[in-house]
Parts: sequence; structure tokens; C-alpha cells
Amino acid sequence: NNYFKIAVLPGDGIGPEIISESIKILDVIAEAFQYKFQFDYGLIGAEAIFKTGDPLPEETLTICKESDAVLFGAIGDPAFDNNPEAKVRPEQGLLKLRKELGLFANIRPLKTYASLIEKSPLKREIIEGADIQIFRELVSGIYFGEKFTDPEGAYAYDVCQYSREDILPIAHMAFQEAQKRNKKLTLIDKANVLDTSRLWRKICQEIASEYPDVQLDYMFVDNAAMQLILNPKQFDVILTENMFGDIISDEASVIGGSIGLLPSASVGEKNALFEPIHGSYPQAKGKGIANPIASILSVAMMLDHLGLQPAANKLRQSVEHAIENKYVTVDLNTKQYYSTSEVGSFIADHI
Amino acid sequence: NNYFKIAVLPGDGIGPEIISESIKILDVIAEAFQYKFQFDYGLIGAEAIFKTGDPLPEETLTICKESDAVLFGAIGDPAFDNNPEAKVRPEQGLLKLRKELGLFANIRPLKTYASLIEKSPLKREIIEGADIQIFRELVSGIYFGEKFTDPEGAYAYDVCQYSREDILPIAHMAFQEAQKRNKKLTLIDKANVLDTSRLWRKICQEIASEYPDVQLDYMFVDNAAMQLILNPKQFDVILTENMFGDIISDEASVIGGSIGLLPSASVGEKNALFEPIHGSYPQAKGKGIANPIASILSVAMMLDHLGLQPAANKLRQSVEHAIENKYVTVDLNTKQYYSTSEVGSFIADHI
Ligand SMILES: CC(C)[C@H](C(=O)O)[C@@H](O)C(=O)O
Ligand SMILES: CC(C)[C@H](C(=O)O)[C@@H](O)C(=O)O
Repeated sequence: NNYFKIAVLPGDGIGPEIISESIKILDVIAEAFQYKFQFDYGLIGAEAIFKTGDPLPEETLTICKESDAVLFGAIGDPAFDNNPEAKVRPEQGLLKLRKELGLFANIRPLKTYASLIEKSPLKREIIEGADIQIFRELVSGIYFGEKFTDPEGAYAYDVCQYSREDILPIAHMAFQEAQKRNKKLTLIDKANVLDTSRLWRKICQEIASEYPDVQLDYMFVDNAAMQLILNPKQFDVILTENMFGDIISDEASVIGGSIGLLPSASVGEKNALFEPIHGSYPQAKGKGIANPIASILSVAMMLDHLGLQPAANKLRQSVEHAIENKYVTVDLNTKQYYSTSEVGSFIADHI
Repeated sequence: NNYFKIAVLPGDGIGPEIISESIKILDVIAEAFQYKFQFDYGLIGAEAIFKTGDPLPEETLTICKESDAVLFGAIGDPAFDNNPEAKVRPEQGLLKLRKELGLFANIRPLKTYASLIEKSPLKREIIEGADIQIFRELVSGIYFGEKFTDPEGAYAYDVCQYSREDILPIAHMAFQEAQKRNKKLTLIDKANVLDTSRLWRKICQEIASEYPDVQLDYMFVDNAAMQLILNPKQFDVILTENMFGDIISDEASVIGGSIGLLPSASVGEKNALFEPIHGSYPQAKGKGIANPIASILSVAMMLDHLGLQPAANKLRQSVEHAIENKYVTVDLNTKQYYSTSEVGSFIADHI
């Protein structure tokens, strides 16, 4: 099969700018490798609210459900963040999309780029050689439990909930990935306080016997937040629930040297979505300074997912070539830098 | 008043070893400054479970309620952590104590010690001059909401809940501290997802007008986990809810160079408790290698709280003197180091 339907959701802030570089890349790849990509654009987030009142219009959901993969930009707008009374929020669009598509696992690979190691706030000896794969549960937990605020605004709650069915598929996925890597899996939780964390531990303990070659460790989230900085090399595969994964994976992004480089895949049984881990970065919108690499590396993860490994590998090489040649945006080199679209074109030209 | 009743709760792991150094210090201070401390010892945590079946025996609670201050060691034992079926847990003792004493604010000061800056995994230019005060809400949130696991162990939940009354006192306290410092307060939350976070934002927005000289900012917890490492100097006072505070404050400990140095105070209307932020560190138990400084600096916070500033200041000077003279435990200097009790005595002798 050489024909793929890609749902394209640029979203808010710098989303559209980086996504157009990813499309530029995909056009070149289609030509070089004789694939055909059909791009179906959809509205989501603040953009969608402004135009339709709905952060995830029905049409967008349909496009995504019928796609072979979703390419996602970014979501979020400060106009909503600083208004606790807003009834509709951009983020609801992404959360509903994750839920509707059943994207239960958010996968974030973290590596250090040799030529960017000096950019990290961490010392070279701490991060050199670190290589972590995070599996974050994405469609349950406190994100999707019941929420409530009383009409007077004097009281609120959010329920964190997990069932065995929520945990099993991502736990198996993480164990399997650990088997392919260094055979070490760390479950990050707060089992000394939370019932849901104890459920995670119990289920992981149960299935561990199916993966006798994998060493399963547990770490409390507070300690993990510290250990990730003190000694990131102790980690191989990390498994964690939704909210802890949100925090831990953004924190871990500092290991790589820049959040502008980090891709992610969110996968389910039928669908998959690919997005940079950085957000909508509204301050940079329209300035041509956004780093397109996180989105471009998300495209590489998408190509892998579609079974197009030769193209994925070629694309990763081209990205490394750009980074090594210091053909990067201002976040990576304040002395000599290029615009979002110059970096995109440089990478595309090398394919 | 020169007479103070101190409840002493050594707890688990290295707790007893570090607490005995703190008592050594308090004895010297009593003599030097003509104070009288009455020490009432109580059982808590795994120790208390083994001896009485209860992680917080009634007697311990009584001692604490009648005290002028509680000096706390550490809690936690791996025997319980790795057993999701355990019915009683050491941590319940500390959580119940916080709740019963109404210790709503956990206060953690973070500073970089000039002579330890090289110990940090972070680069000098990132951390030099960082000075943060964290206010973590301590008696509500997901720690104290309803918890449930179904008998088959197929489903569990934990409720995160906040009321206006939970938030107001600690919010005022944090604003007031910001007024005394650099007039910047950052509320860390996840208001793009959680109803409870939106309640925090709303209440902070409301009372901000009473503190017109303080600049109030908001930051999502995922971004904050990253910003704390990328640029800790941007923070002055941080305010956050219970679980985010647990994670963020342990993470922020890397800024100081070592978790073995960091004290905390947990204060309520009537009572106050002082504890190092490190845990029970069971691997080090009984080896004489635990760093007593975090507990000793917690004593300094306790002396401040009791109104004994001259003694508190003298004690802090003595600690700095020990650090500058490299009279420290192995965690701070692997080449030349002293035992827990040698470091305690060195500090005591300098008072
Ligand atoms: C935008 C927000 C709702 C989202 C999340 O919290 O999941 C983002 O932070 C992420 O990590 O993808
Ligand atoms: C021991 C544990 C229950 C406790 C907490 O999570 O509050 C500890 O991590 C702390 O920060 O004091």
C-alpha cells in the first residue's frame, strides 16, 4: 500500500507554522519514495472555537477516524487559560479527540543529541548517553474522571480513576518495548498514598511473570522527579499514569537539550496521532522563530507507524544533518540561526 | 517564655539517626541561650505499626497536640511499598498527623550554597543565586479525598477535592511571604484540565487585589516542571496544591545541590511540624552515613517559629561553617567525609 490518508490538524499558536514545514517534508518524501499522501485538514482548539464554537467539530473527528494517521500541531490560547469561567476550552478538543480515537498510549522517546549537549541546563556527564522511552497512559485518570464545581464556586473536585482494562494494554506495551531495549521498566506512581497507584502496581506485578527477562522497578513520583535530573541514565522504559506522565515527560525534556526537538506518538487500536511535545507557544506565533524539528520528528514516528521505515530513517538522518551543521532555529543557537521555514526547507532538501 | 515542649518523632529508616543529631544541637542551644526544651518522644510510621499495629498511636497524637513544636524524622518502609495489599501503611501516620494538627502549609525554602554549587547536576549559571520559597497545601487535595478499590481489584479511584476554605489561608500566607521577598508569586496548577485548579486560580485572582504590590503569575504544572530546571531564577514564591507540591518541591531540591540539606516547616493555626524533605532512605539506615543537616536546618526553622531568632541564626551560621569547611557527610564529598554524628558534633561545637 502506497496511499495514505493523513488528517492534518494545525491547531493554535505556532501549530500552523510547524505543521506547514511537516507537510513540506511529506511532499518531498512522497516524491522521493513514490508514496501518495492525501491531506485532510481539520479545525481544532481555540481556532475551532473561534470559527465554530466547538473545540472539536464533528467534521474534524470524522476526518481523523477515517485517517491512517493524524498529524497534530499544538493547542491552547492564553485567552482561555486566564479565564477560570470560560465554558469551552481549546484543550477539550484534544482531550476529546484522544478519547474518541482511543489513543491510550502516549510514547515519548528522549535522547541527547551530541551536538546539542551544551545547550542543556544539565551537566554533560549527567545526560550524555541518556536514552529513555516514556509510556504515558492517555485516556483515563484524573483527566477523564468526573469533574465538578459548585455554582457558587466554593468547592470543586476531580476524580482520578483507573480500571484494569485501562492499565493492561499500556502496561503490556511498555513491557514489550523494554524487552526490545535494555530490559528495564520503571513504574512511576504514588502507591504510598493513592489507591489508583496501588492498582497500577498490582497489575504490573501480575503481568511481570510474562516478561521474565524484564526487570520491573517502582519509583514514587516525587522521587522520580528528582532522579530524572540527578541521574537520568538509570532509566530505560518508564510507565506511568496520565497526570504523572504529563509532568514527568515535560520535565524529562530538559535532558534532550531542547523541548523544540521532542516528538511524540499517541497510539490506539485503530488510530494514531503524532505531535510535538511542546505546546502552542503563543508568544512566538507568526514570528517565524518556532523550531519545526519536534513536528518533523513526529512525522518520522508517523512514517514508522505506517510501515515506511526507509523514509523514516532518511528523514531522521536529514534532521541530524541539519542539527550537526547548525542549521537550526534561534532556540538552539542564538548566534547564528534560521527561520522556521528555512530549517524546514534545509531538511527537505537533504532527503 | 524560655520553656518549650518539643514532640520528637524519629520515625523510620534514617529518621532516628538524624533526629539524635538534632537533639544534640538543641541541648547545646538550650545551654548557650538559657532555654529549656522538654522532649516528648512518640512512635510513628512503620516503627509504630510493628510495635502497636497503629501508624499513629493515640499517645503520639496527644504529645504532638500539646507540644509547642513537633520535630519529625522520616517515614516509610519498603516492606509496605512493594505490597499493594497491605492494609495499614506507615505514611498514613504522617498524613493523619498533618490532618489532625491542621498543618495546612508546607513551606520549603530553596537556596544554593556557594560551596556546593559544583555538586548540582545543573550548571552553575543556571542555579547560582536561585532563591525560591515553596508553599504546598498539605491537608486536602487528592491525598485526603475519598479513595476506593473494589474487592476484586479491578477498579480504583482517588478524589482530588478543594474548597475555598482549604485554599484561602495558604494563598494569603504565600502572598504575604511574596510581599516580604521579591514580590512575585507563581501559582502552579493544571487549570486547562482540572476543576480544582480553576478554583485555585479564581480564588488567587480574587485576593490578588489585596496585595497590589505582588505580581501573580500562573504556570501549568507540566511547564513548571520544565521551567524549574531551565531557569529556576525566574521563581520567587511558588504556591501549589498538595500533589503538585509533592512533586515540584522534590524536583526543585536538585537546585540546592543536595536533598540532604533541605528543611521544611508544616504549619497550622495551633501546631507546627519540622522535618527534612528527604525520606526514610532505608538503604542507609544504621550505617552512620545519613546527612543530618536537613534535620538540623529544620530545627533552625523551628527555632524561628518559636521566636528564638538569635539561636536560629547562630545555628544556620554553624551549619554554613561546617559546609564551608567541608565537614560533611559522604553525599556531599566522596573524597573526604565524616559520619552523621561527627557532622552533628562539629556543628554543635561551633554554636
Ligand atoms: C494541552 C494539554 C491538555 C496536554 C495534556 O495535559 O495532556 C499537554 O500538556 C500534553 O501533554 O499533551
Ligand atoms: C511520605 C509521603 C506520604 C510524603 C508526601 O507525599 O506528602 C512525602 O513524600 C512528603 O513530601 O512529605
